[in-house]
Amino acid sequence: MDCQESLSTDRPFGSKERELPEFSQTLQGAMAPVAMELDSSMEQRTELAFSVLNTPDPPAPWKEFASSVKGKVFPGGKKRPSSLLHGLVSALHGLFPVLIWGRNYDLKSFQRDIVAGLTIASLGVPQSIGYANLAKLDPQYGLYTNLVPPIIYAVMGTSREIAIGPVAVVSLLLSSMVQKVIDPSTDPTAYKKIIFTVTFFAGVFQASFGILRLGFLVDFLSHAAVVGFMGGAAIVIGLQQLKGLLGLSHFTNKTDMVSVINAVWVGLHQTWHPANFFLGCSFLIFILVTRLVGRRKMKLFWVAAIAPLLSVIASTLIVFLTKGDKHGLKTIQICKDWSSLCSHCSHGGCGCWRSFASARGYQLDGNKEMVAIGFMNVVGSLSSCYVATGSFSRTAVNFMAGCKSPVSNVVMAITVFFTLEFLTRLLYYTPTAILASIILSALPGLIDVGEACTIWKVDKMDFLACLGAFFGVLFGSVEIGLMVAVVISFARIMLSTIRPRIESMGRIQGTDTFCSARQYPIAAKMPGLAIIHIGTSFLCFMNANFIRERITQYVLHDDKQDKEYDEEKPQFVIIDMSNVMNIDSSGMAALGEIHNKLGSLGIQVTIANPGWQVIHKMKLAKLVEIIGSSRIFLTVADAVGACLSQIDDNRHV
Amino acid sequence: MDCQESLSTDRPFGSKERELPEFSQTLQGAMAPVAMELDSSMEQRTELAFSVLNTPDPPAPWKEFASSVKGKVFPGGKKRPSSLLHGLVSALHGLFPVLIWGRNYDLKSFQRDIVAGLTIASLGVPQSIGYANLAKLDPQYGLYTNLVPPIIYAVMGTSREIAIGPVAVVSLLLSSMVQKVIDPSTDPTAYKKIIFTVTFFAGVFQASFGILRLGFLVDFLSHAAVVGFMGGAAIVIGLQQLKGLLGLSHFTNKTDMVSVINAVWVGLHQTWHPANFFLGCSFLIFILVTRLVGRRKMKLFWVAAIAPLLSVIASTLIVFLTKGDKHGLKTIQICKDWSSLCSHCSHGGCGCWRSFASARGYQLDGNKEMVAIGFMNVVGSLSSCYVATGSFSRTAVNFMAGCKSPVSNVVMAITVFFTLEFLTRLLYYTPTAILASIILSALPGLIDVGEACTIWKVDKMDFLACLGAFFGVLFGSVEIGLMVAVVISFARIMLSTIRPRIESMGRIQGTDTFCSARQYPIAAKMPGLAIIHIGTSFLCFMNANFIRERITQYVLHDDKQDKEYDEEKPQFVIIDMSNVMNIDSSGMAALGEIHNKLGSLGIQVTIANPGWQVIHKMKLAKLVEIIGSSRIFLTVADAVGACLSQIDDNRHV
Repeated sequence: MDCQESLSTDRPFGSKERELPEFSQTLQGAMAPVAMELDSSMEQRTELAFSVLNTPDPPAPWKEFASSVKGKVFPGGKKRPSSLLHGLVSALHGLFPVLIWGRNYDLKSFQRDIVAGLTIASLGVPQSIGYANLAKLDPQYGLYTNLVPPIIYAVMGTSREIAIGPVAVVSLLLSSMVQKVIDPSTDPTAYKKIIFTVTFFAGVFQASFGILRLGFLVDFLSHAAVVGFMGGAAIVIGLQQLKGLLGLSHFTNKTDMVSVINAVWVGLHQTWHPANFFLGCSFLIFILVTRLVGRRKMKLFWVAAIAPLLSVIASTLIVFLTKGDKHGLKTIQICKDWSSLCSHCSHGGCGCWRSFASARGYQLDGNKEMVAIGFMNVVGSLSSCYVATGSFSRTAVNFMAGCKSPVSNVVMAITVFFTLEFLTRLLYYTPTAILASIILSALPGLIDVGEACTIWKVDKMDFLACLGAFFGVLFGSVEIGLMVAVVISFARIMLSTIRPRIESMGRIQGTDTFCSARQYPIAAKMPGLAIIHIGTSFLCFMNANFIRERITQYVLHDDKQDKEYDEEKPQFVIIDMSNVMNIDSSGMAALGEIHNKLGSLGIQVTIANPGWQVIHKMKLAKLVEIIGSSRIFLTVADAVGACLSQIDDNRHV
Repeated sequence: MDCQESLSTDRPFGSKERELPEFSQTLQGAMAPVAMELDSSMEQRTELAFSVLNTPDPPAPWKEFASSVKGKVFPGGKKRPSSLLHGLVSALHGLFPVLIWGRNYDLKSFQRDIVAGLTIASLGVPQSIGYANLAKLDPQYGLYTNLVPPIIYAVMGTSREIAIGPVAVVSLLLSSMVQKVIDPSTDPTAYKKIIFTVTFFAGVFQASFGILRLGFLVDFLSHAAVVGFMGGAAIVIGLQQLKGLLGLSHFTNKTDMVSVINAVWVGLHQTWHPANFFLGCSFLIFILVTRLVGRRKMKLFWVAAIAPLLSVIASTLIVFLTKGDKHGLKTIQICKDWSSLCSHCSHGGCGCWRSFASARGYQLDGNKEMVAIGFMNVVGSLSSCYVATGSFSRTAVNFMAGCKSPVSNVVMAITVFFTLEFLTRLLYYTPTAILASIILSALPGLIDVGEACTIWKVDKMDFLACLGAFFGVLFGSVEIGLMVAVVISFARIMLSTIRPRIESMGRIQGTDTFCSARQYPIAAKMPGLAIIHIGTSFLCFMNANFIRERITQYVLHDDKQDKEYDEEKPQFVIIDMSNVMNIDSSGMAALGEIHNKLGSLGIQVTIANPGWQVIHKMKLAKLVEIIGSSRIFLTVADAVGACLSQIDDNRHV
C-alpha cells in the first residue's frame, strides 16, 4: 500500500527506479541458478513480475457499484452545496433549466423564437392531426398533444431546438398495441382511456428511469436495428395512408403488409372515389416540390415548413366551396369517435436531440432529458394528450428557423391553442386524403436507405439485424419487428462472448511489439514458442471450454487449419491475457486444466498481463501458485524474453 | 497480399527490415514538416502506421463461420481418408471406440473390470431402486435404466471409468416436471408414457447436439450456478426422503422446502411408525460409518460400496422374518403403480467425465460423448428406461475399483439383469425406509460446501448466482432454481458488456510498457496526455454511449472521482483499443462523436492498436479519414512518442 502513496503524485518518467529490497531478494533467491547469468535483465523482470502479483486489491464489486450510483445521483461529487438554501437553489436550477437560461434571455432571441415557433406550428398542426388519425384518435387529441407537453418541456428541458409533439412511429406503435386490447371502433371511450393510461405509465417510466439514472436501459436496440425498424414502420405507415388517399370506408386493423395490400385490393374492387386520390396526390406533389425547393435554397426552408398548412387550408376551401363532401370526398367530420408505446419513444427522442446537440456542439444530459420528457407525458396524460416526444422533422425545421431557446415550443403551443379555440370547426371540411398526403410526405425522412447501405458495407451482421427488424415490421407486426430487433441485437453480443477470437501472435521485427500473426503478416512467429491471445473481456462458463479446447488443439497441432505452422511442438506456451478483464470459476478451472494438460506433455504455460480482477481472483483461487508466480509476466515481451533465455540455458546444459 | 506470401515461412526475427517504398514515401510526404527533425524514429513509426492501416482484410463472418463448421464436422482437416473403405473404417472407429480399445484388451484388464463391475453393481442396484422411487416410477424401471444404457455406452463411449445409470437430480427434475402435466397417482400409465417420451427426446437432442458439434450449448450454466443448484436439489431430495424414513402415507407432490416441511409436520401429527424411522436411521448410520472407513483406508473402499446392498438384504430379511410389514413398516410391495429433463443431465455427466478424465490425464471429446449418451437414452426409452447419465458416486467407486475399460459397465449390466430375473420378488419385503437412507447417504456428495466457500472467497458475484440457484430450488421449485441460475449467469455477461472498465493508463518507469494506473500504482501518468483504455471486446450499442460519456467526462474533468488527476487539461487523448476486437455502427458513431467533441476543444484524439475487424470497419466507414490516418498507431508507446514529439515541436515554435 505504501507504494500507492509514494506514487500518488505524478513523477516524470525515467526517474530513478524504485527499490524493492525484500521482494526482489526473495525472488532472486528462489531463482538464483537462472539469475546468475542474466543479471540486469532478470532484475528488471523480477521487479515487473513483482508488480503483476502485488497490485493493490481491486475494489469489491459492491463498492464499485455504490460509487458508480453515488457518482450518478450526485454528479460532480465534491461540489457539495455550502448551505441548505444554496442546495435548494441548485436543485431547482437542475430541475428547471429555464431559471438558468431565462436570466440571459433577451428580445432578439425572443424575436427569432417567435419566427421559429410559428414555423413549426404551421408544420405541427397538420402533422399532429394526421398522427392522431394514425393513433386512431380524434384530431383534437393530436392538437392537445402539441399544446401541453411542449410548454412543460420548455420549463424542464435542456435542449434548445427540439420540437415536442406527437410522432408517426409512436402513434402507430400505440394504436397497434392498444387495438389488441380494445377495438377503437366498438368502444372508443375505453380505447381513449387505455391510451391515456399507457401515456401516463410511459411518462412515469421515463421520469423514473431519468431520476434513477437508468438512461442506459434504452440502449437495448442497436443502431442497425433502429434503422431497419424505422424503415419498416415508415412503409407500414405509408400503406395505412392508402385508406385515406383512396377514400376507402372499410379497412383492416392489422399493420402487416400482406393484410394491408389485401384490404386495398378488396377496397379498390368495391367503392372508392378517385377524387380523393387526385386531391391527395396533387397536394403530396405540392409538398414534395416545396421541400425540394427548400433543400436547394436554404433561405426558402419556410416554404417547405408551411406547405402542409397551406395544403390543409387550400383543400378545406376546395371541399367547402365545391361541397365535395357530398360527392364522395371523405372528410374528417370531427367526431367519428375513434381513439390511440412506452420506452421506445424516448429512444427515438434521444437520437434526435443528440444529433442536433452535437451539431450545435453542446452536451445533453440524457437522464435529465428523460425526466423532462417523462414528466411532460405524465402531465399530458392527465390533460387528454397521448405520448409525445421529440419530432425529427419539426426539430430540423426549428433548427433551421434559428430558434434560440425552448420558447419556440411555447410559441408553437400558443399557436396550437388558438387553432383549437377558433379553427377546429373548419376542420369539418378537411379531406382525409390531405392528412394522408401530409403523413406520406413526412415518411421519406424515416427510411434511411443511405444508412442501410453503409451498414451493409461496414458490417454484414449488423445489416442482418437491420433486415430482420425491417421485415419483422413489414410482414409480422410492429411488436414482432421490435422483438426481432432486440433478439438479434442480444444474440450478437452473446455470440461475441461465446466464440471469442483465439489468435496466435508474432513479433514485429526489430521491436518488442507482439501482434496477431493473422492481422499483421509482418509479425513473425517465434520458434519454440506459441504465443496465444485470448480475445474476450470475460473468460467465463460460456467460453471457458471453447478457449481450453482451442488452445490445447492449437498447441498440439490437432487443428490443421493454420497452414503456416511449423511442425515442431513448442516448448513454451505464452497466453496473452491482456484482453481478459474478468474471469469466473469456470474460466479459472479452464486455465488450470490447460496448465495441467500441457504441463503433462512438458510444455510450460506462461501468462502475460492478466487484468486486475483476473490476477486478484487467480491469487485467491491459488491458481498463481499452481502456475508458478515466476511464470506470470506483465508483458508478452517479458514473457518471451524469459522463455527464450530458458531455452538458451537448456541448450547450454 | 504479397506481404502475406513473402512472410508465409518463419523468419528469424531481427532479419532486415522490409522495404515499403511507395507507402512510406507517400506518408512521409504528407508529414514532411514533422518528419524533418525526427528522421529515423519517424520512419519506423510510419512503417508501423502503415502496418496498422494496411492489414489484409479480415475473413468475412460467413467464411469464418463456414470454416469453423467445416473444422468441427470434419475434425483434423487435411487428413482426408485415402479410400472409401478406409473412410468407412475410420468412421466406424470414431462411432464405436470399442473397435479400437477392444483389440488390445487382455485378460488382466478383464479381471479388474469384473471386480469393478460387481462393485458398482452392488452400489447401483439399491441406488437405482431409490432413484426410480424419486422419479415416482416402479423400482424395476430404475433397474432397467441400469441395464440397457450401460451396455450401449460400453460400445459407443470414450470414457473408461464412467458408470452409467439413473442419478438423483435428473430423477427429481424429471418427476417434478412431468408431474405438472399428469399426476402419477391418478394415471400411472400415461405418466410412464410421458417419462419415456421425454427420455426419447432428451436422447435425440443430446445425440443431435453431439452430431452437429453443438456441445457448447450445454455451457449455459455457470459453475457457480451448478454448485448452488446441486446443493439445493440435494436438500430437496433429502427432505423428500422424510416420507419414506418416517413411513408417512400422505405426502405433498411439491418440492419446495415450505410445502415439504409442512407435509412432514402434518404427517407427524397423524400416523407415523417409529419403526420405519429407527430402521432407516440405523442403516443410514451403518452406510455412513462404512464410508468413513472406506475413506480412511483406501483398500476398504469396497466395504462402502457394498454397504447399501448389505443394508437392503439385511433389512429385507428383518422385515421378512419379523413380518414387519404387518406392523406398520412400509415396504415397496412391488406394484403401487406410481410412475417419473433434457439437456441438463448431459451437463452433470460432462462435469463428471471431465474431472475423472483429467485425473487419468487423457482428453475426452465432449461431442462424441454426447452422441453416445444421447443414443443410449434413445435406445433406453424404447426399452422402458428413463434418462440415464454418468453417476458421480458410482463413477468414483468404479475409478477406485481400478476399472480398465467400459467392460465394467457391461459386467454391472449383467449383474443387474440377474437381479431383475431372480431377486425382484424379494424386493416385496424391502422397507421404503432403507431406500430413503440409501438416497440420503448419496446426497452429501452433491452438497459442495467447500466449493461454495471458494466461490465466495474468489468471486462475490458468482456466489450470488450460486445462492440464487440454491434458494430458487429450495423455496421455489426445481425449474425456478434452474431459471434463476440461467438468468443470473446471463445477466453477469450482459453487465460486463454494458459497463466495461474504462481506465487511464500510465507508463511503467524506464520501460515502454503502459498499464492501468489504478492496477499498477508504479505506472506514472504522462503530463499533457490522457491515455484511456477501453476494456470491452465488443464496442457496441450497449456500451457506446457509456464509453463516450466516460471518456469525455474523464478528459474534461467532469468526473471528480479520480483524485490523483492533475488539473491541467490534456492536449492529446490516446484511446487504447487493443481490447476492442469488434465494433458496430453505434460504436463507430461514438468514436466519431468523441473525436468531434474533443477536437472542438482543441484536444487531439489518437487511437492505438485497434482490433482487426475494428480497423477494417473504421476504414470502410471512413472513420480513419475523419480521425486522420496519421493518428492511428500500432502501440500505445508509438502513439505516446508521436504525441510527445508534437508537444515538443509546439514548445519550440
